Amino acid sequence: MTNPSFDGWTCPIPLKNYPKIVMGHGAGGKMMNDLIGHLFAPLLHNDLLAQMGDSTALDIGALNPGGRLAFSTDSFVVSPIIFPGGDIGDLAVNGTVNDIAMSGAKPRYLSVGFILEEGLEMETLGAVVTSMAHAAKKAGVQIVTGDTKVVNKGHGDGIFINTSGFGMIPDGVDIAAKNARPGDVILVSGTMGDHGMAIMSKREGLEFESQIISDTAPLHEMIAEMLEATESKGGIHCLRDATRGGLSAVLNELADSSKVGIEFEETKVPVNAAVNAACEMLGLDPFYIANEGKLVAIVSPDIADEILGVMRKNEYGKDAAIIGCVVEEHAGRVVAKTAIGGSRVVDLPAGELLPRIC
Amino acid sequence: MTNPSFDGWTCPIPLKNYPKIVMGHGAGGKMMNDLIGHLFAPLLHNDLLAQMGDSTALDIGALNPGGRLAFSTDSFVVSPIIFPGGDIGDLAVNGTVNDIAMSGAKPRYLSVGFILEEGLEMETLGAVVTSMAHAAKKAGVQIVTGDTKVVNKGHGDGIFINTSGFGMIPDGVDIAAKNARPGDVILVSGTMGDHGMAIMSKREGLEFESQIISDTAPLHEMIAEMLEATESKGGIHCLRDATRGGLSAVLNELADSSKVGIEFEETKVPVNAAVNAACEMLGLDPFYIANEGKLVAIVSPDIADEILGVMRKNEYGKDAAIIGCVVEEHAGRVVAKTAIGGSRVVDLPAGELLPRIC
Repeated sequence: MTNPSFDGWTCPIPLKNYPKIVMGHGAGGKMMNDLIGHLFAPLLHNDLLAQMGDSTALDIGALNPGGRLAFSTDSFVVSPIIFPGGDIGDLAVNGTVNDIAMSGAKPRYLSVGFILEEGLEMETLGAVVTSMAHAAKKAGVQIVTGDTKVVNKGHGDGIFINTSGFGMIPDGVDIAAKNARPGDVILVSGTMGDHGMAIMSKREGLEFESQIISDTAPLHEMIAEMLEATESKGGIHCLRDATRGGLSAVLNELADSSKVGIEFEETKVPVNAAVNAACEMLGLDPFYIANEGKLVAIVSPDIADEILGVMRKNEYGKDAAIIGCVVEEHAGRVVAKTAIGGSRVVDLPAGELLPRIC
Repeated sequence: MTNPSFDGWTCPIPLKNYPKIVMGHGAGGKMMNDLIGHLFAPLLHNDLLAQMGDSTALDIGALNPGGRLAFSTDSFVVSPIIFPGGDIGDLAVNGTVNDIAMSGAKPRYLSVGFILEEGLEMETLGAVVTSMAHAAKKAGVQIVTGDTKVVNKGHGDGIFINTSGFGMIPDGVDIAAKNARPGDVILVSGTMGDHGMAIMSKREGLEFESQIISDTAPLHEMIAEMLEATESKGGIHCLRDATRGGLSAVLNELADSSKVGIEFEETKVPVNAAVNAACEMLGLDPFYIANEGKLVAIVSPDIADEILGVMRKNEYGKDAAIIGCVVEEHAGRVVAKTAIGGSRVVDLPAGELLPRIC
């Protein structure tokens, strides 16, 4: 949890009269203006957001003459709102930053849409928006347009946040789920399952030897470094952040989109000891658990070691590992080699493992 | 309500096994893929959405060499989901289309984020998404990226929808809330209060002589016609769609942003007879009631009549009217001349008049 007094923000008088969100804060009148003017604007301030129009005009002419743009959206309904290692605010910023970055784009501008439940503590909202501001600053993106709605008590759950955003894709970069080809090498940028198990442990009140912390983080700089290192050679074929459904969902989607088989070795996938212990206790498989600061990369074999080195130099990739490869056989299927030398098909998760994880 | 069999969509077998939304539909696994593949994809289909990546890559190089882009977001929490004249689906498309258009931009691409409540009928979701598809087609925009979350029963309210989107602003167009100047003329594109009173009458089970219908509509083509008619002259200074807080909220915001006074004549503002009657019965002022297909324009006096003519030729502007003017006096304040010859300050609404109107 970040410090709620970011940029010196403390709940000002016009908001102190309403220590909790009421329906009027979403009604388009004076109370909503107070909320925007005294909470959102000072915390998220930038010249573009200050336009305060129905939309925000952005001069993107200089960003990329080639003109390919990556556009993404994500809604966040995580419960609880605040969890070990983060909260719904930084999760909402990092989530969309990462989705944009997975195309190779540099994320630039975000929108934010709040759906607040009547009765939400104003201080909680202040803390979450502070956290968004920190995350945006850290990721180098600007929140340039927004919207606030309020729903009656019992028809929401504290805070839901949508972030949408975009960035420009550098000329010549072509990263897509359909680009994996036999012989390619599969890497992960770090340990699997941290975010999901952090939420789970908080929600269920579980205690482990060492606390499990969400890995929520912006990954676009690591991706920029990977692209830079291989600029003249190309060879980064697929990038995905392993969120809902975890590693297994990502590998299945990539195998399906590229019409290739995927094989990986279970023992090569990094998993934190505490996450492993928690998964064993709860009967969960860490390969199905959500991450919020980890990516899967599929690259051509000649650059795999170089990419691994670049990842490991970045603070969010220090545990990066090569875990497997793309094969021609069993197209659309993911097969894991187990610790005891067998192999098993790793399917898409069916339905719900951990609800409201992001 | 639109026909749920749009494009021949009927609830297919994999979804029929789940006549209602369950938590697994938001968990990132097979059930979510079924929902996307059998409901969202066939209804909203286009080549860009079919990329199905974390983000969608859009080639915008050809859209505008000048490079100014209008970016907007809106969440929709309207209750009830289906109301006379529309539903949350077309409202969500038209709302963001209009927000983008108010900068003079041609809306092009939308994202959609669904927050579904466990227990929502699959057929209702199908009907709403069908309605979105119709509205997008009518407005000439593409829904190119999306996200679906599911929250536990009792922690949402059927369907919440976020739409974000953008379009390119033509070179030389400069429409902004701060651009009104003394002497300018104020126009509205039609009757005030229809959407809000349609929701209100449905919600409260009120019956009037003639049914009140929401005015939800895309306004970007009317704006394009207004811009085209005045291309060489300029003169369109401010455009706003009069949603939450109605006409009075828009006029107050424009007066405040432009640091000018605003005067209008109450009798010149078009209001449907049924809306007027309903407002009188409920003690509401139609100038504070939300619209979803009406705009306020502030233009230089030399083009006012021409703009009025252009608006009236468009299907969504046939009741357009000149209602007042911008003055140097009482900067930041909106004053109405009443029917009996007096004048009154028209303030921003304080808080809640009609909650969850959009």
